Amino acid sequence: MAWDHGFEVAFHPRAVAVVGASGRSEARFHGGAFIRNLKNQGFSGRIYPVNPQASEVSGLKAYPSLAALPEPVDLVIISVPAPGVPQVLEECVAVGDKNIHIFTAGFSETGEPEGIELERRIKEIAQRGKLRVLGPNCMGLHVPAAQFSTFYPEATKPGPVAFIAQSGGHCIQFTRYAHGFGIGFSKVVSYGNAALTDSTDLLEYFATDEETRIITTYIEGVKDGSKLLRQIKDINRSKPVIVWKGGLTASGSRAASSHTGSLTGSEVVWQAFFKQTGAVSVASLDDLADATMTFLYLRPPRGRRVAVILGGGGHSVTTADFCSREGMEMPVLTDASRKALRAFVPVAGTSIKNPLEFEAAQRDLGVLRRMLEIVAADPMVDLLMVNPHLDMLKETGPDEIAKTGDFLCRFARENPQKPLVAVLETWGGDPAVSRAREQLRVELAQAGSVVYRTMPRAFRALSKFIGYHEFLTASQNASQSTEGSAQIS
Amino acid sequence: MAWDHGFEVAFHPRAVAVVGASGRSEARFHGGAFIRNLKNQGFSGRIYPVNPQASEVSGLKAYPSLAALPEPVDLVIISVPAPGVPQVLEECVAVGDKNIHIFTAGFSETGEPEGIELERRIKEIAQRGKLRVLGPNCMGLHVPAAQFSTFYPEATKPGPVAFIAQSGGHCIQFTRYAHGFGIGFSKVVSYGNAALTDSTDLLEYFATDEETRIITTYIEGVKDGSKLLRQIKDINRSKPVIVWKGGLTASGSRAASSHTGSLTGSEVVWQAFFKQTGAVSVASLDDLADATMTFLYLRPPRGRRVAVILGGGGHSVTTADFCSREGMEMPVLTDASRKALRAFVPVAGTSIKNPLEFEAAQRDLGVLRRMLEIVAADPMVDLLMVNPHLDMLKETGPDEIAKTGDFLCRFARENPQKPLVAVLETWGGDPAVSRAREQLRVELAQAGSVVYRTMPRAFRALSKFIGYHEFLTASQNASQSTEGSAQIS
Repeated sequence: MAWDHGFEVAFHPRAVAVVGASGRSEARFHGGAFIRNLKNQGFSGRIYPVNPQASEVSGLKAYPSLAALPEPVDLVIISVPAPGVPQVLEECVAVGDKNIHIFTAGFSETGEPEGIELERRIKEIAQRGKLRVLGPNCMGLHVPAAQFSTFYPEATKPGPVAFIAQSGGHCIQFTRYAHGFGIGFSKVVSYGNAALTDSTDLLEYFATDEETRIITTYIEGVKDGSKLLRQIKDINRSKPVIVWKGGLTASGSRAASSHTGSLTGSEVVWQAFFKQTGAVSVASLDDLADATMTFLYLRPPRGRRVAVILGGGGHSVTTADFCSREGMEMPVLTDASRKALRAFVPVAGTSIKNPLEFEAAQRDLGVLRRMLEIVAADPMVDLLMVNPHLDMLKETGPDEIAKTGDFLCRFARENPQKPLVAVLETWGGDPAVSRAREQLRVELAQAGSVVYRTMPRAFRALSKFIGYHEFLTASQNASQSTEGSAQIS
Repeated sequence: MAWDHGFEVAFHPRAVAVVGASGRSEARFHGGAFIRNLKNQGFSGRIYPVNPQASEVSGLKAYPSLAALPEPVDLVIISVPAPGVPQVLEECVAVGDKNIHIFTAGFSETGEPEGIELERRIKEIAQRGKLRVLGPNCMGLHVPAAQFSTFYPEATKPGPVAFIAQSGGHCIQFTRYAHGFGIGFSKVVSYGNAALTDSTDLLEYFATDEETRIITTYIEGVKDGSKLLRQIKDINRSKPVIVWKGGLTASGSRAASSHTGSLTGSEVVWQAFFKQTGAVSVASLDDLADATMTFLYLRPPRGRRVAVILGGGGHSVTTADFCSREGMEMPVLTDASRKALRAFVPVAGTSIKNPLEFEAAQRDLGVLRRMLEIVAADPMVDLLMVNPHLDMLKETGPDEIAKTGDFLCRFARENPQKPLVAVLETWGGDPAVSRAREQLRVELAQAGSVVYRTMPRAFRALSKFIGYHEFLTASQNASQSTEGSAQIS
């Protein structure tokens, strides 16, 4: 059975079984821990521990087998040792429980004959019994809206982003980190060895999932590369697909083989993949968070020509370097704009070329407004970037950061044709400044604008975001011209 | 006059004059602000405001001219408007004050004929009067040990790192940011347009400055490139020189011309510069801080083969990718090591290839010790990297992070032959975890070890650090073989 919408109930389960649950294990993740996590999150469904050696686990009545449960369940979580997994799957087939998450590791990823044979057996049983299986060797599901998670009990918010990852660790890291970027999740799925459910199965689901608007994924290997390419090429037109491909170096590839038994493919092949699909390529957790935040909140600019307003001449030099290195453009403003700027920007200690360097713009909102109005009207500019100096604003007065945030939100709302981003650096490490930045990030997001933490990160994310929209436009043009020639012939 | 040790007194001044001091200016930096900053820092020398229109500035008696001061001064800070600067310099010549910092901007960097002519005049006066001049268009000096700074009143600590930058903004950013990396400064110098004092003059001073062990610098342009090359090639043998070269892209170069009137040179030329000098190339503030911290605290490993102990299979894949991309090496361990590890590391859900992936190593110090002892003894390994999970340790118990720190310090001290580094990530953004990380950074630094904030940053800094030592070794070998052949011939 193809992995299909039959799994839908597992994302919003009314009843789950945890096979192999005990309260005793030392390990960080085990059956009993899953039960505790579910309870701590406030999961309101029914939880059935299955353990023939116990009558109670974590305060819940335990059952000797799946057959002994009072009802069929929407998801079976298996955490018995690897050799016992085939038997549990046979029970699932017998009682008709179709949705399975195998947490247990120790299969093909070990490279050992026993593990490979065990994985072959669970595949055979699942295919015969038409089971939908995640794993083995994976963390399973995290669905914030359902208060359901087999991960840590996290404070992740619901939202329109799906994350699909072979690695459970990446799921935990990204969901934790994402919180500070305003990223909420529809569903998070860790699928481990991908013995039965592969990324292509999950993508098929998320392509039409109404709760998901952006798809993010961490991939080590794929079974059917050309299928993945066709699929992402198609999905990416309507839902951006952001891909972190792991194992592209020799040592990374070796580690991927130990981790999920994956064949990772070469860097050249994956470069071609990104070129053909238009999927967004990221290579670190910072990249992933910055890019996802940008797709969530920023209005797409018409192009990649950015006007930057900042203070400090050296900062303007290195900012221009960062901009060029990430493939963004920093145009010289029109003569009219420069003339208008020179009316109030003194010659000494400033620059009105671009970046616009004028220290007063970092502390005087009247000055910043005049400069922003000029660059927003400049036809050479697609996108505005500002760089208020948070440390200095805090030292200037208690409300200065908040006033700056209010102004930027208002400006962003009043000038939707030229998207505005802010780079808010906090070199001093003052926690109060970091909190203020977080507050501004939240407010600006509501105004269709984003806050980045450093200049290089800002340009990198913007370049990926704009590159995605350029790809869409180029694809549409290409398909229109094909249609045109078809009509002519 | 060449810029020479005559400037020494300006770094530890007993008396300074601030010409153009008034308490009225709106600007962030101006004469009155310099005086306030000096007083706030606890500067114990004498401060003389010079302003013919005022009898008092910031609570200090003001003087109408340099000639009216009761004594010669060790440093004259000039912040009068640009057209008035030549006249002040003539006064310096007349009274014999030799050390000058021209804060004022509005010279050749404007690209305007008036500014270019003004800069030509100040050069002429300074050369004729044998003045030692920093600037114009610069922030001047910051000497923590002397509690003397024309920058913000910062809490920067004294230490063995010099920072030389055309950009005052970079000086402020780096000194603020450096605090969280344990980096203290001997002297920080912003030299702006470099009309008279160039990077080569400052390097000549710092080459023999006993307070300076590591030289860091931000450069936009140089007047005599081949002199800089010869000089850094020489200095770098005994004091590492870490260089952030700004303006290497087209837009960065344009900005540098507006900033300090510099001609920046091409990327190809600078690549050759780094290859020939062995100077350490960095390209962002993060790079600069990470590299400087590494040079300050880490013992040099014998090579670039790193063994990494971490938890999480996906994390091991992407860590290996980061390692390879930064040119570090992740060797497979010897059979003997792997056998010893397999004695207590289970097969399922782990890897003992490298990275060594075993979740228990992130929370159980007994396990971590056994693993570290094995890899420290492995001849394939030059360097050890650990990755304790701070968020999880904090959730486990109040003392867990501190215990881990104690253990790592002890291990680092007991195993000096294989340097140990820790990568401590804090994805959750908990300020208490960030504070704990900072505490560990301080403790580990005392044990000759360093703490990095993310995996990519760790590998990047380590690669630069090891690359420096490889360059030294290769140079020594080359010069020995040259000596050998000279003896033979």
